[in-house]
Amino acid sequence: MSVHLHDPGPWRDLSPLMNPRSVAIVGASQRGASALNREPRGNRVIQNLKSFGYQGQILAVNPKYSEVMDCPCYPDIAAIPEPVDCVVLAVPNRHVPDLLESAADAGVRAAVVFSAGFAETGADGKERQARLESLSNARGFLICGPNCYGILNVFAKAPLFASTIPAGFLPGPVALVSQSGGLSTTIANALMLNRCVGLSHIVSCGNQAGATVEEYFNYLVEDENTRVIAAFVEGFKQPHKLLEVARKAAAHNKPLIILKGGRSEVSQRAAATHSGSLAGAAEVIDAAFRQSGVVSVRSLNELMDAASVFSCDSFIQRYDGGRRIGVLSGSGGECTLVSDAAANAGLEVPPLTETTKTQLQEAVADFGNMNNPLDGTGAMYDDEKIFPRLLQALIDDAHIDVVTVNLEANDPRPKELKSGNRFAAAMKKAAASSQKPIACFSSIVGGPVDAEILAPLREAGIPLMEGAECATTVLRNLAEYYEFQKNRHANATGEAAVPYAKKLTSGIMPVETVFRLLEEFAIPVIPIVLVHSAEEAVACAERMSFPVALKIESSGIAHKSDVGGVALNLADGGDVRNAYARILNETGRRAPDAKIDGVVVQRMAGTGVEMILGVKRDPLFGPVVLCGFGGILVELLRDTAVGIPPLSREQAQDMLRGLRGFPILGGLRGKPPAAIDALGDAIVGLSRLASSLGEQLAGLDINPLIVLPKGKGVVAVDALVQIG
Amino acid sequence: MSVHLHDPGPWRDLSPLMNPRSVAIVGASQRGASALNREPRGNRVIQNLKSFGYQGQILAVNPKYSEVMDCPCYPDIAAIPEPVDCVVLAVPNRHVPDLLESAADAGVRAAVVFSAGFAETGADGKERQARLESLSNARGFLICGPNCYGILNVFAKAPLFASTIPAGFLPGPVALVSQSGGLSTTIANALMLNRCVGLSHIVSCGNQAGATVEEYFNYLVEDENTRVIAAFVEGFKQPHKLLEVARKAAAHNKPLIILKGGRSEVSQRAAATHSGSLAGAAEVIDAAFRQSGVVSVRSLNELMDAASVFSCDSFIQRYDGGRRIGVLSGSGGECTLVSDAAANAGLEVPPLTETTKTQLQEAVADFGNMNNPLDGTGAMYDDEKIFPRLLQALIDDAHIDVVTVNLEANDPRPKELKSGNRFAAAMKKAAASSQKPIACFSSIVGGPVDAEILAPLREAGIPLMEGAECATTVLRNLAEYYEFQKNRHANATGEAAVPYAKKLTSGIMPVETVFRLLEEFAIPVIPIVLVHSAEEAVACAERMSFPVALKIESSGIAHKSDVGGVALNLADGGDVRNAYARILNETGRRAPDAKIDGVVVQRMAGTGVEMILGVKRDPLFGPVVLCGFGGILVELLRDTAVGIPPLSREQAQDMLRGLRGFPILGGLRGKPPAAIDALGDAIVGLSRLASSLGEQLAGLDINPLIVLPKGKGVVAVDALVQIG
Repeated sequence: MSVHLHDPGPWRDLSPLMNPRSVAIVGASQRGASALNREPRGNRVIQNLKSFGYQGQILAVNPKYSEVMDCPCYPDIAAIPEPVDCVVLAVPNRHVPDLLESAADAGVRAAVVFSAGFAETGADGKERQARLESLSNARGFLICGPNCYGILNVFAKAPLFASTIPAGFLPGPVALVSQSGGLSTTIANALMLNRCVGLSHIVSCGNQAGATVEEYFNYLVEDENTRVIAAFVEGFKQPHKLLEVARKAAAHNKPLIILKGGRSEVSQRAAATHSGSLAGAAEVIDAAFRQSGVVSVRSLNELMDAASVFSCDSFIQRYDGGRRIGVLSGSGGECTLVSDAAANAGLEVPPLTETTKTQLQEAVADFGNMNNPLDGTGAMYDDEKIFPRLLQALIDDAHIDVVTVNLEANDPRPKELKSGNRFAAAMKKAAASSQKPIACFSSIVGGPVDAEILAPLREAGIPLMEGAECATTVLRNLAEYYEFQKNRHANATGEAAVPYAKKLTSGIMPVETVFRLLEEFAIPVIPIVLVHSAEEAVACAERMSFPVALKIESSGIAHKSDVGGVALNLADGGDVRNAYARILNETGRRAPDAKIDGVVVQRMAGTGVEMILGVKRDPLFGPVVLCGFGGILVELLRDTAVGIPPLSREQAQDMLRGLRGFPILGGLRGKPPAAIDALGDAIVGLSRLASSLGEQLAGLDINPLIVLPKGKGVVAVDALVQIG
Repeated sequence: MSVHLHDPGPWRDLSPLMNPRSVAIVGASQRGASALNREPRGNRVIQNLKSFGYQGQILAVNPKYSEVMDCPCYPDIAAIPEPVDCVVLAVPNRHVPDLLESAADAGVRAAVVFSAGFAETGADGKERQARLESLSNARGFLICGPNCYGILNVFAKAPLFASTIPAGFLPGPVALVSQSGGLSTTIANALMLNRCVGLSHIVSCGNQAGATVEEYFNYLVEDENTRVIAAFVEGFKQPHKLLEVARKAAAHNKPLIILKGGRSEVSQRAAATHSGSLAGAAEVIDAAFRQSGVVSVRSLNELMDAASVFSCDSFIQRYDGGRRIGVLSGSGGECTLVSDAAANAGLEVPPLTETTKTQLQEAVADFGNMNNPLDGTGAMYDDEKIFPRLLQALIDDAHIDVVTVNLEANDPRPKELKSGNRFAAAMKKAAASSQKPIACFSSIVGGPVDAEILAPLREAGIPLMEGAECATTVLRNLAEYYEFQKNRHANATGEAAVPYAKKLTSGIMPVETVFRLLEEFAIPVIPIVLVHSAEEAVACAERMSFPVALKIESSGIAHKSDVGGVALNLADGGDVRNAYARILNETGRRAPDAKIDGVVVQRMAGTGVEMILGVKRDPLFGPVVLCGFGGILVELLRDTAVGIPPLSREQAQDMLRGLRGFPILGGLRGKPPAAIDALGDAIVGLSRLASSLGEQLAGLDINPLIVLPKGKGVVAVDALVQIG
């Protein structure tokens, strides 16, 4: 039985749902399975509860019977004389809302709803879902589903689960949360049978009408039987709670591994600002994961391999950071492939130390190849003494952080032709005295994993991954998680901003207001002056010192240069006079309906790296901060860093390091390094601005922000703010 | 037995090696296996030959015996009275060179050498390998290996193979070539047992001391039992023959699928020219594959899935191009994941037609979801009639080119809990009358593939792939292969160039010579004049019309702007005079040892897209042509297109389409489209120049080449040529 430590915060207590003391099943019957029909789902739940050894009370609800499968049966929920923690509804969707309301009236605190036909279908379904949501929100009634397989709490022996649970279920430290019911069992079975990874929970949460993915995460972070959470999620309902619970998971040192489906969905595009199109929903989610230490994976197999590694305790205890892997294989070809995979994933495969080479020469006479990856060649298969010596050499090598062994644990051939067992035994022996983490991976992904190889390895703290690509990616994920944990305190989020006091006018903000707003949030600008005649412009330019720029000012013109409204590098009074006339002519011709408020005069900025900073409103996270290089990097390659406010200085720097173009800021081809610190500070200022304005801000572009050479700061040259 | 059709070309006839009429094994013994030693490899070969039903003569060579395993045995190769096509050497490496020479002397034509310890190890090994290579080159002796498992010709029943061949070997259309012995059997077993794909050959070619990968490909392209060639290659020995045989494979409509290992090897960097560093060996191989229609895959699993699909005849016959897939799954989660994978791979998952929706509504009452991917939900499992109707709807949908079904063919649970069989039967039935190709894929990669599901599907022309990521990538590969085949005649290679007549002087070529050379190969340039005084420069600029540029000219200065040797946009005579003096001063100070040949005057080019064109010498393919955008795209992101001469106009255009920055040429953000045709022609000219100069050319940069707006052509502004 698990014990829960609850924070005083706004999280709901999911215990009645996750760990109920009594359960009532609606939809069980004495009928049972027939030639025409599968066994009723309600019966399957009772069967699961009994075979799993549930210790609480099991009750049935069905007006036709007084008992079902030896459980007391009542005509309706209200008729049950004793308190019920949770009802399980195995009934058609049309009956669900009424049943749940009557359950809540009867004092029941939670429910699992299997049936489909809610928000994922037509108008009727959406209405049904809305009734469930209001029950959850207004009365605190906890609902798992609808459209799900339910919950299996392994250590509480409480399977409120719609799918048949195979015998030999493997308990363990991994909690699996999957929005998809089908995938929940697919992943769970593969984890147990192909990776020997045991589970603490399976949560198939479906449409999240009541309890959300974030709430399950919170429960599992606090659950003492769970050490790793692995999840497949299609949509988040409480994104800001996601950030909170992810940070809490990190603080509890419980890796939260998430495969987010639906990355390719067409992203929402904002109207006036450029920033609106710089990043889609997927990039915002990526940023949220990165900021909060979520282990983000990209395929079901990466999810499984990550769960395999992160949950393998003695492996993790021996891991001390570091991306340098040693590889031992009996195949030269695999040595080549794993080197390619490691390079792709961002791991190092360093050369062996001279000490190791000497040691190898002494231990394995006439062994020519002493590289990393270490190719044991056919010799390793022919002579039993060779493999343990090679393995020990890698364990002892000072250049290597993680030892990996290429092991065919999934050879599809008959047992007598396999050689994996022998190597597994030697690895187990070596692991017993090794201070260094050892993992193994197969060449081919697929085929039947041999439990006789896998189980003893796992016991010895050696996790299995399938394929060099997944293995190297997961070890990279591990290194990143380790780094996040190391810097967690330093990389705390920024401080929450005070809501902006003023109510701003809807529409495009006048440029002078924009510049004042930026300065208010400590974002440096090149001062501007709004003028209304050529003479005024010339006088103003002379005060500023040449060269200057002129720009048309009109709330009706979002992209000034597209309508000939910008003149740059004006060297003297004559230039300014000509440009003033030209700008008015051009914009009058190309944007005849725009009301012109004047012309802005501005000193030309110094030379530096041109960047775009922006704020867009994300449907999940609200205002998010964007940063990218001007020009094709952002236009064509969408190389944009995203940050979710409130951002700290460290988080802003981390955003910048994630840009592919980051080396540009360091100074490419003889250019001086740029003022990266000041750029980060501008991002922090923008984050405060975004949080402060909140819903008032529809979008914001600073384009360009010039990042001057190191020590000289940054300046915003132009900016566009849309309110409302 | 296979019949071979030989081209008259320079290809060697591999028949004595691949399909020998008689075999002599050196290294077989009456000893057999013991507690201390495994059975001698030679005995295993005899065992393999017998159990596989080899029809030719099997002879043994061992001075100790007169027979081994019921085969006649002779003291040495010369003593064998009858003709021997091929010897198999299962002996230590030190005996190999002498034995092969005596075999060649005795009239033997081919050999398989298993032992390691040749080029892959130290000096002794390299010397041994050299002797084998000279035997192959000088006397035409065919050698498979060394350091290999040998050859298994399935239909000739000729396994000259070192590894135990399991019973129930599956003959079929796929020839597997693997440089790595270990991977050859790993891949072969997985193909047969996890994909039900039959094999025509396994060739483990090892160090390629004699027969090369390219020669095996040629043999297999001509082999009537082989319809698909799947290969794992670490290095090519005859790269230009690779291009030839790949084109030949395409002409025979035999897909050549290659996994190239060793992509991450540090690439060789050329000295003086910039182009030398723009692309590494991996990018050049990618270009070679793309130009010659090779199906390039990136992992062992992609290799297997590609072999599975490309070898599935009725699937391929029904495929008619097109990247629009329909997906049927019982899991909403998988629907999301496969959509993400398809978007990543470049496939479309189009909406269903209205006709299909109507048809579905009629066929499956109360079925809300009618999207693509089509989620069959739990209903599909509960009611047997639903799945066939959903499948038929996708088959009939006019928007869909390929129907894919998400099928758990690798469920690791006990048989009674699986549901795959039922769906497989329905798919088989639907395929019998379908004109549209149908494939299936699992969610999880891994687990035991159920042969009872797989074999009937395969027979029905439905290949299995594992995982949405591999499945969508392989279908994209198929679409690309189809497009290559469609355009094969149009996209023929360019014409071979005539070798350059003149012998050029080593070193950096004088700029005037460079410009004449470019013009000779029809690459437009902005004319230059070399001057030796400020007055001459001014006069020259006035003749050209302003603005002009000045550039220092010195064979000792490769990068002029790095030493202050360039002045641009000079507007009048005064500017020119000042710049002339400044350039001489600066370069004198910053490159004091460089001999100055004068200063070049050049009219400034018009505005356009700045590109870099170049030639670098690749260690495999010799001179290759490079093309990329100036600035960070090429500097930072290495977005470079590579072409291997001789290039046709169509190939040059195809190179350009491969650039990530290609949309820039189409005109971004209101810029006019660029002269893409003229750019392609410049690439073709450069390809002719590169082929013509051949070994004389060490490197070449055209930087920048300005691509003017469409219709206005291109002009080379500056260029650097290194000879020698």
